[in-house]
Amino acid sequence: MSLAMQQKIEIAADKPYPVYLGSSLEGLGEYLRHQFDDIEHILIVSHQVVADLYAQRLMKGLQDYRINLLIVPAGEEEKSLDRLSRLTAEALGHGTDRKSLVIALGGGVIGDLAGFFASIFMRGIRLIQVPTTLLAQVDSSIGGKVAVNHSAGKNILGAFYPPQAVWTDFSTLESLPWEEVENGLAESIKHALIADGDLFQFFENEQKPIKHRDCLIWSEMVTRSSLVKIRIVSQDEREQGIRALLNLGHSFGHAIETEMDYRGITHGQGVSVGIVAAAHLAFAKGLMTSAEVDRVIALLNSYGLLTKIKGLDSQNLLHKMQADKKNQGGRKILILPQGIGQALVTKECSDSEILAAWKQVLF
Amino acid sequence: MSLAMQQKIEIAADKPYPVYLGSSLEGLGEYLRHQFDDIEHILIVSHQVVADLYAQRLMKGLQDYRINLLIVPAGEEEKSLDRLSRLTAEALGHGTDRKSLVIALGGGVIGDLAGFFASIFMRGIRLIQVPTTLLAQVDSSIGGKVAVNHSAGKNILGAFYPPQAVWTDFSTLESLPWEEVENGLAESIKHALIADGDLFQFFENEQKPIKHRDCLIWSEMVTRSSLVKIRIVSQDEREQGIRALLNLGHSFGHAIETEMDYRGITHGQGVSVGIVAAAHLAFAKGLMTSAEVDRVIALLNSYGLLTKIKGLDSQNLLHKMQADKKNQGGRKILILPQGIGQALVTKECSDSEILAAWKQVLF
Repeated sequence: MSLAMQQKIEIAADKPYPVYLGSSLEGLGEYLRHQFDDIEHILIVSHQVVADLYAQRLMKGLQDYRINLLIVPAGEEEKSLDRLSRLTAEALGHGTDRKSLVIALGGGVIGDLAGFFASIFMRGIRLIQVPTTLLAQVDSSIGGKVAVNHSAGKNILGAFYPPQAVWTDFSTLESLPWEEVENGLAESIKHALIADGDLFQFFENEQKPIKHRDCLIWSEMVTRSSLVKIRIVSQDEREQGIRALLNLGHSFGHAIETEMDYRGITHGQGVSVGIVAAAHLAFAKGLMTSAEVDRVIALLNSYGLLTKIKGLDSQNLLHKMQADKKNQGGRKILILPQGIGQALVTKECSDSEILAAWKQVLF
Repeated sequence: MSLAMQQKIEIAADKPYPVYLGSSLEGLGEYLRHQFDDIEHILIVSHQVVADLYAQRLMKGLQDYRINLLIVPAGEEEKSLDRLSRLTAEALGHGTDRKSLVIALGGGVIGDLAGFFASIFMRGIRLIQVPTTLLAQVDSSIGGKVAVNHSAGKNILGAFYPPQAVWTDFSTLESLPWEEVENGLAESIKHALIADGDLFQFFENEQKPIKHRDCLIWSEMVTRSSLVKIRIVSQDEREQGIRALLNLGHSFGHAIETEMDYRGITHGQGVSVGIVAAAHLAFAKGLMTSAEVDRVIALLNSYGLLTKIKGLDSQNLLHKMQADKKNQGGRKILILPQGIGQALVTKECSDSEILAAWKQVLF
């Protein structure tokens, strides 16, 4: 996948920042030397597995800097205040100060955790996102959202914290376990569903090369999917409007993840079931035809993504949706697809309509 | 103190916000109704003692809103991630959402804790600071700094989070315990020392009416002292330059507080000793005459503020200064007075010079 040319796309935000697609891990050091003249110390935050694969390549370019590598155990449960507190102690132990730079090397958990850490450590130090999973590359590394979970809900404590840059090397996807690929595909297909009907067709048409990780097709998939996210967050950094569409499937998906205590379900599978529930609700509201709902289910199925889930109780799930950050004044705010390639935000769904949608995805 | 007229002063910042000096607790509700049309729910965060005194007066104006009062136990040790986690659970239990408003009703601890909570809850909800102590009114409520402590250092995790407004009612100072008055006086005298020689003289000349809480003199003292802070943070919201001067005495003071585990020492007393240590260091560096150092010590003494402290070890204190957020690349950054009414930032103090300054304030 190293054939891809580096593309730089600027995200319009209060503080604009660039996303480098198709860059190389080794090249980050040169970029940093060129852009910043006051960095001496770098804190790389990563998982052991990711660090084993990529830390050496990354550090090859960082020999001018004093580097510390902080390893965080894998798992969504590490996105916690406890882990944040430990990172703080370790960072101080390594002499981290206001001029230090944090590099988040990993997937969504690392990006969220290290990003939130950078946003509050000494009231904010600089951050570079180096996403190594499909989900992080097409979605979570873009847009500045960082957070940790709380037992009462996912991503409840966090910030909008634009990084200095997002540095994306497609080659890290080559070794990604398929389960992780699914996580990213769920978000990519969601991007297509809410904002890019052509990309939805691309996913329908290119199943074979995508499943075989064809290098050119993957570059195209990551780039096109990232561009949807970049376009949306550039219009609405703080989620006052259109950015909320990116939460399609997530009100349902987060409820599933919380109900299952983040065990036995990946984020992507939760979102996938959530997309299907939202599609059923959209059908009930006259926003989609049943043929369109079937297309959504068929596409998710074809990539091995869950479209139904077993052993959960619809009332409990409904209750879990109350902690959703989008809710206002006790009303549930939901994102529903409007055909293929468009979506809308609504608070016009009653609990009984939501329950009926839940029942369509439970067995 | 109700004679004071309300003054509105705008703070220049990324997001400018007003400071209302001499307003009334009862009047906040009318202000909110006038300024915001989408607030339904308000979370008041306070201490029991403060709430007993002022919550009724505040709520008199807030009858249009759904209100929850969250009580936090008193003490600097409550500025913690643990307390933040509990506040989060309580807030969710009360149906707090992105449209909710947080009112921080209290002193510096409440302002920092409730402010940081508001800054990260669901990635940031609106905040009004209602400072009820002298320290909070002249200093901590102004400028948007919020934080919690970590066992490894004070205010290590936090944010720059401008409130919607600062709402200051001088009448809350009438019942303030003298120990709390001292906390504020230490910061007020610091403001005078770094930026307003006339205000320093005011403190020298008006000792009697200040100690007797003369209402007009106090209004003048709070207003003039707040204006120093407002002027400085308006020039440098993010502490890239001049704002650092406000930390005069705090590198030393925080070291004392941390070393004593925040027990048996108030913040004001720590800062007061810290100001004296900084003055001795300034003398050693040729920035102050010994007569000026004596004036500083005499003024602090005259208000019952500590100028020496017993039973601490200078090496331990020096070590504690390493966690100071201002430090860069392992060098200690210090603020030193330059005569009376000016100050500067320097990294040109060696550990042995700092040790010598410590020894002057230890016995």
